[in-house]
Amino acid sequence: MASVDPGTLETILTLCLLIFAAKVGGEAAQRFGVAAVVGELMAGIALGPSLLGNLAPLGFQPILVNETVRAFAEVGAIVLLFVAGMETRLAEFRKIGVLAASVAIGGVVLPFALGYGFMVSRGTTTAEALLAGATLTATSIAITVKVLRDLGKEKEPEAKVLVSAAVMDDVLGLVTLAVVLSIIAEGGIRAGEAVGIAFKAVGFLLLLTVAGALLLPRIVTRTVPWVKARGTLEASAMALCFGYAYLAGVAGLAPILGAFAAGMAIAETKITIEIKEFAEKVSFLVAPLFFTVVGTLVDLSALSGPSVLLALELTLLAILGKVVGCGLPAYAFSREMKAAAIVGVGMISRGEVGLIIAGIGATSGVFSREVFSAIVLMVVITTVLTPIPLKRLYQRSIKKV
Amino acid sequence: MASVDPGTLETILTLCLLIFAAKVGGEAAQRFGVAAVVGELMAGIALGPSLLGNLAPLGFQPILVNETVRAFAEVGAIVLLFVAGMETRLAEFRKIGVLAASVAIGGVVLPFALGYGFMVSRGTTTAEALLAGATLTATSIAITVKVLRDLGKEKEPEAKVLVSAAVMDDVLGLVTLAVVLSIIAEGGIRAGEAVGIAFKAVGFLLLLTVAGALLLPRIVTRTVPWVKARGTLEASAMALCFGYAYLAGVAGLAPILGAFAAGMAIAETKITIEIKEFAEKVSFLVAPLFFTVVGTLVDLSALSGPSVLLALELTLLAILGKVVGCGLPAYAFSREMKAAAIVGVGMISRGEVGLIIAGIGATSGVFSREVFSAIVLMVVITTVLTPIPLKRLYQRSIKKV
Repeated sequence: MASVDPGTLETILTLCLLIFAAKVGGEAAQRFGVAAVVGELMAGIALGPSLLGNLAPLGFQPILVNETVRAFAEVGAIVLLFVAGMETRLAEFRKIGVLAASVAIGGVVLPFALGYGFMVSRGTTTAEALLAGATLTATSIAITVKVLRDLGKEKEPEAKVLVSAAVMDDVLGLVTLAVVLSIIAEGGIRAGEAVGIAFKAVGFLLLLTVAGALLLPRIVTRTVPWVKARGTLEASAMALCFGYAYLAGVAGLAPILGAFAAGMAIAETKITIEIKEFAEKVSFLVAPLFFTVVGTLVDLSALSGPSVLLALELTLLAILGKVVGCGLPAYAFSREMKAAAIVGVGMISRGEVGLIIAGIGATSGVFSREVFSAIVLMVVITTVLTPIPLKRLYQRSIKKV
Repeated sequence: MASVDPGTLETILTLCLLIFAAKVGGEAAQRFGVAAVVGELMAGIALGPSLLGNLAPLGFQPILVNETVRAFAEVGAIVLLFVAGMETRLAEFRKIGVLAASVAIGGVVLPFALGYGFMVSRGTTTAEALLAGATLTATSIAITVKVLRDLGKEKEPEAKVLVSAAVMDDVLGLVTLAVVLSIIAEGGIRAGEAVGIAFKAVGFLLLLTVAGALLLPRIVTRTVPWVKARGTLEASAMALCFGYAYLAGVAGLAPILGAFAAGMAIAETKITIEIKEFAEKVSFLVAPLFFTVVGTLVDLSALSGPSVLLALELTLLAILGKVVGCGLPAYAFSREMKAAAIVGVGMISRGEVGLIIAGIGATSGVFSREVFSAIVLMVVITTVLTPIPLKRLYQRSIKKV
């Protein structure tokens, strides 16, 4: 393990630079009154192929985002959602379930319809229009959670609606993706099949959480007096988180949803405080990696004039889709304009899931290069912009939902 | 990042199982009065190709130690040495420098001579004999440190001698490797060149530590009042650790030596306590990964009768070389038999560096399959056995060196 393998060294250097740049970017962003996550993303863009990466021909290529670095970033997202899950008690989640579900459904249906309709009106293929619609559906819960945490607002009622809705949203977004890919592959799908996929995904998440919430408190009560070595409980809880993430992935869901379910299950035990403190420390290290790695995915040089225009049009639809699609249900429940605005705005950022769907579209050949570049830029703009109005809205110290 | 890529899922599952197995193995080992690290190694062997891995043809292959998992394990070793470095003040290190240097030199020269002489007497090639000698030189500092930590003895004088000597030992072992590889490649090397390489390596480590110890306290004093975001200091310190590990690697040294130097540099600042607590939490997660991954490298089925005999002979030489080579200088300084025994026994385990040198021998074709299998088994036996007598010696509550 003390090898001097060049690949390993590049990985170590990349981790070093990404973490350090994330922290410099995060601190700098806070100086400008912007959430730290924006600075972390900007640091990633600066280190990526668009800017400092261009110096590679001069022999200066500081970072190399290889499979290993992406895995560390993935763990960052998993740990972040694990912490978020620990802040959500099952009882509360059930209480705000209907509101969050309405917000999530509104935030998937409207953006999908807007994206699909717009692309069809431009005369693209049905497949491209469907997949573009799908990229507009999934909210980046990791970024929203980080912003709420930076603001110290992660326990406010709107925050819980946002997080719950974003979790459902991710499920719905990935189900939308699965359904869209089925339509593209088979040239059509029955409505009953689509509903079946949706129920399977939601049911699986509920099963994981409820099973954990029932079993874990008993296991913990019996195990804790028996444990001797330092770190056993903390590391085991993290292993559970990875296990849940794996099960979610096997079921065709996003691993981060499993991590969220693991956090919710741990929240029902009496060791929540220790585990949460531990997971937060780990997230200090790996969460910034996630956001800088997302930043490095941006290749600004791949953008032409028309694709920038298309990106701006898609961005407008992305914002409109979430603000109206999520804000309207929130307003219907709260009758409170600013709370509804927070929920709508908090759901704007597309982040990681949007980028993954865009990547699927690119590698499968469904997306043209122009559409792919535009969608990546849409994801970046919504991700970078969201924290700014979200923070502003919170600073006006609104009433609770 | 919420992808459902099978490779990513296998990595997540492997991390889950390795961490969980390490914790079960560690707790079980403590029930038998054995250091937790032995259980962690055993857990790795059990999950590896020799035992549970054999079930792969039946469709059951629980873990996949890919490049990413190895990188997590490598980070585990780095973090462990970072913590160990933070427990070593530069002033103390200088104070015990002569003793530790004598122990380290004795523990490199004697095992190398014994290994080389024995292999030549068996009639192997000069290259094979030289490289086998080199595998006997390097002490596994990570395992020794873990054992001392498990016993709560990491601040005892012998522990500091052990850690300092093991660090020098690693440098000397890798320099030996470099010299041996030069001899094999060029058919000979001048003594002056060998000494030059040795001085370069030691000088680089000193430079990193002293530069950090001089600059960091000033940087910390100016930066701390300026920092706003949570986790900035902790993550930046870890980035420094990775940066030092990278620099050590670039200089042809083991990355873990850089991590140790980074820890020593941080130890000169006023934020040591926070950073150490943070790094320890991270090590709860990644250090067990390191030991289980080392365990999975063992392929018991590759061993035949003659190679088991050879392994036992090499193990005896490995034990003799360190107990005498390290114990004798320790006794010369302390005139205390048990303290000398602790130092000699503490240096027996070869662990990761021995495995890497063996791997170089195998992939370069210098080692026959028989010698390679025997050396791997020697490394495993010394690694697994060392904690047992080391723990026993400590439990007799000896006098200080």
